[in-house]
Amino acid sequence: MNAPVDIAKMLQPRPVPAAMLDALKARFGERCSTAQAVREQHGRDESPFEVPPPEAVVFAESTTDVADAVKLASQYEVPVIAYGTGSSLEGHLLAVQGGISIDVSRMNQVLRINDEDLTVTVQPGVTRNQLNNAIRHTGLFFPIDPGADASIGGMAATRASGTNAVRYGTMRENVLALEVVTASGEVLRTGTRAKKSSAGYDLTRLMVGSEGTLGILTEVTVKLYPQPESVSAAICHFPSIDAAVKTTIAIIQLGVPIARCELLDANAVRYVNNHDKLSLRPAPMLLMEFHGSAAGVAEQAQTVQEVARDHGGEDFQWATTPEERTRLWTARHRAYFAGMSSNPGCRTVTTDTCVPISRLASCIDKAVTEADEAGLPYYIVGHVGDGNFHIAYMIDPGKPEQRVLAEQLNDQLVHHALSLEGTCTGEHGIGLHKQGFLVDEAGAATVEMMRLLKRALDPKNILNPGKIFAL
Amino acid sequence: MNAPVDIAKMLQPRPVPAAMLDALKARFGERCSTAQAVREQHGRDESPFEVPPPEAVVFAESTTDVADAVKLASQYEVPVIAYGTGSSLEGHLLAVQGGISIDVSRMNQVLRINDEDLTVTVQPGVTRNQLNNAIRHTGLFFPIDPGADASIGGMAATRASGTNAVRYGTMRENVLALEVVTASGEVLRTGTRAKKSSAGYDLTRLMVGSEGTLGILTEVTVKLYPQPESVSAAICHFPSIDAAVKTTIAIIQLGVPIARCELLDANAVRYVNNHDKLSLRPAPMLLMEFHGSAAGVAEQAQTVQEVARDHGGEDFQWATTPEERTRLWTARHRAYFAGMSSNPGCRTVTTDTCVPISRLASCIDKAVTEADEAGLPYYIVGHVGDGNFHIAYMIDPGKPEQRVLAEQLNDQLVHHALSLEGTCTGEHGIGLHKQGFLVDEAGAATVEMMRLLKRALDPKNILNPGKIFAL
Repeated sequence: MNAPVDIAKMLQPRPVPAAMLDALKARFGERCSTAQAVREQHGRDESPFEVPPPEAVVFAESTTDVADAVKLASQYEVPVIAYGTGSSLEGHLLAVQGGISIDVSRMNQVLRINDEDLTVTVQPGVTRNQLNNAIRHTGLFFPIDPGADASIGGMAATRASGTNAVRYGTMRENVLALEVVTASGEVLRTGTRAKKSSAGYDLTRLMVGSEGTLGILTEVTVKLYPQPESVSAAICHFPSIDAAVKTTIAIIQLGVPIARCELLDANAVRYVNNHDKLSLRPAPMLLMEFHGSAAGVAEQAQTVQEVARDHGGEDFQWATTPEERTRLWTARHRAYFAGMSSNPGCRTVTTDTCVPISRLASCIDKAVTEADEAGLPYYIVGHVGDGNFHIAYMIDPGKPEQRVLAEQLNDQLVHHALSLEGTCTGEHGIGLHKQGFLVDEAGAATVEMMRLLKRALDPKNILNPGKIFAL
Repeated sequence: MNAPVDIAKMLQPRPVPAAMLDALKARFGERCSTAQAVREQHGRDESPFEVPPPEAVVFAESTTDVADAVKLASQYEVPVIAYGTGSSLEGHLLAVQGGISIDVSRMNQVLRINDEDLTVTVQPGVTRNQLNNAIRHTGLFFPIDPGADASIGGMAATRASGTNAVRYGTMRENVLALEVVTASGEVLRTGTRAKKSSAGYDLTRLMVGSEGTLGILTEVTVKLYPQPESVSAAICHFPSIDAAVKTTIAIIQLGVPIARCELLDANAVRYVNNHDKLSLRPAPMLLMEFHGSAAGVAEQAQTVQEVARDHGGEDFQWATTPEERTRLWTARHRAYFAGMSSNPGCRTVTTDTCVPISRLASCIDKAVTEADEAGLPYYIVGHVGDGNFHIAYMIDPGKPEQRVLAEQLNDQLVHHALSLEGTCTGEHGIGLHKQGFLVDEAGAATVEMMRLLKRALDPKNILNPGKIFAL
């Protein structure tokens, strides 16, 4: 087992010189804040870690703002951390080496809607809900939906996905082009609006998932999809988690183009019932959605209903109106907050393993057994169509032994997933939390190759230093 | 306009020391050849360039063979070029800086078929047809199909695609994991068999499309897809290329999940008729394929037929039997060779632009006008559903002015495509041929970032040096 993450050992503060603070104030005026409350807000995310906040926060309103802030950081060799909505779960935003935060939430313009090409270009602070509202009139939508209303920049930086990835892919598949501020403050473009390209190294995908350590994203061009002619959502209850998972495996192996295929265990159902005033029966269930023509949707649903029945699944309950569907999916997206509000004062340690689909039943089964034995409050939600699921353990921050226990359970789960040829993180990223797991998964030599790239692109180690790996 | 590629200026031979040849012979015996015919075979590809061949060819049979050859090359600072089937169109395989070729065609084992996970792991010398034959019994298939029966290693290295990419993506979307021999001869793994991951930098996609300049691929894990329940192929003739293209644009904007959507102009139809003994009417046509359930296929085809009619398209002609379909697609895949056999002694200069779908009609229209004015024999084939098409100019290698003219036409087309926010290469890669275009497309600063990565991972510049960019 890896030793639990020791944040104290990761702290390597690099003080911001007074001259740099003066230069930031001169350049940004009131848009550079050193107020304690502002710093603290930018010094934490949804991870369970507490570290001192950044020394200043710059509110960027343009690419030039970001570039100028990074140039100063480069000059003074001070860390810079881009901040979107603060919804990271793995400590990506924490200033373990000090420095400044660059808040890009005011860079929230939808710059170019190219609806006839099914693409859109946005600034990094645009959130996924804001984007979908802005393009609704086009008949198109952007499918990637992590639980939070995250920023598109942050989603690209963590290679996020969500409930639609089983059909539409993740940020890996959906980012076409980027504008990036490099470690020296230079502004680059990667990719084009062409759907495919063989033009040199795939810098776009190198930046996607690099967690702010190779560049700061200042524009993101993503793919859009036509709103399906027909959408229907169904709930199917199962006698066991295992039955729901085995149904999912069969659906994927059959090639059914299901748009969403989410597992909730009985605990998750209870929490979302409480939080979102639903009255779902607290039993393991799949929450599914089908996209296509009316006939296509009916056909998919029929196939899946038959597969589900073979595994003891009940008759589908349909969410027939858009309002009902929205209510269900909103509740699903809020599961994280539902868990916290049902366990007041707790923090959440969330696992994120993803395994080849045939191994998913084994992986979840062992995780459930271990969670039941451990006795911590927990729930399971999963993008099971992708082989990805989360066990969220609710821990009392006043009881450090609970965090140790949750980390131990996560560790066991990750190593089981790796033995099944899976990954320690399907969509949340490495951040501070999973650096040991990354080495276990990829091997020391492969992580060393990542370090070579980092040193080449950021020789002063100022871009979100200490994340993904220690240099 | 960029100056036409001057291969003579790219030649920077780095002689292979006798001691290294001795060491190769000692290690590989007869599997290291310096025979003139063998060297010449490995010193060319389908590009129109002629350069001196590599000094030796090593026939690798294992990852260890590749690693040992690379270690010797590293020790003596000699270039190494991986060779699969030799079907590159852009000069990727040409030994412009001398060195040795590592032929991986004997590394042709399908290592692990994980049909229940829809993945397969192969050695790099496995060809796409070989792979599909090996997995046919599983009910799965591998969709990526460049014209040639290329090797999976070569396809990954050039980020290849083909006729199915409109629905199934390219090598970018379909490679899950790699085994790679680095510039120092170390063996690494990137990625896992999980469908998605946020675990650190996306080294897999950095290697995909890196044209052998960052590592040599020794294992490739790719996604597979269930053979569709129903497949039907249709031909639709149009009064003009423009009408066919506008039909395609509308199909994509409607979100029809068409599996293949290929344009052939009248010239291309004539050539494939001659070469494959078909009797297609020589007029602009779309060759399409629909995958899905029987009802889904019928529905897609009906939608597309209606769209086509709106643009003057004729009634679909159906290829109803698998044999008919195979015959049509085989002919389509052989278009390149059909063009050459109809113009004996010629070589082909092929363009490869890809643009946002709404710009495709404008892009093709201008290209056709310019090609007609120029007077060289040409034909057009296109993966038009992706916005990607090829004009192939047939040139007489004895008339250098024809190559200059073809290059000038390509140059005009590329710069038009770039002005439309497209790319100079959808699927063939940069190689030697498009290095100027890459700078025009990506910008000097972005290409400089690629150079930084290259220097970091290959400090002695031994991995296929001189390709993509000059260092």
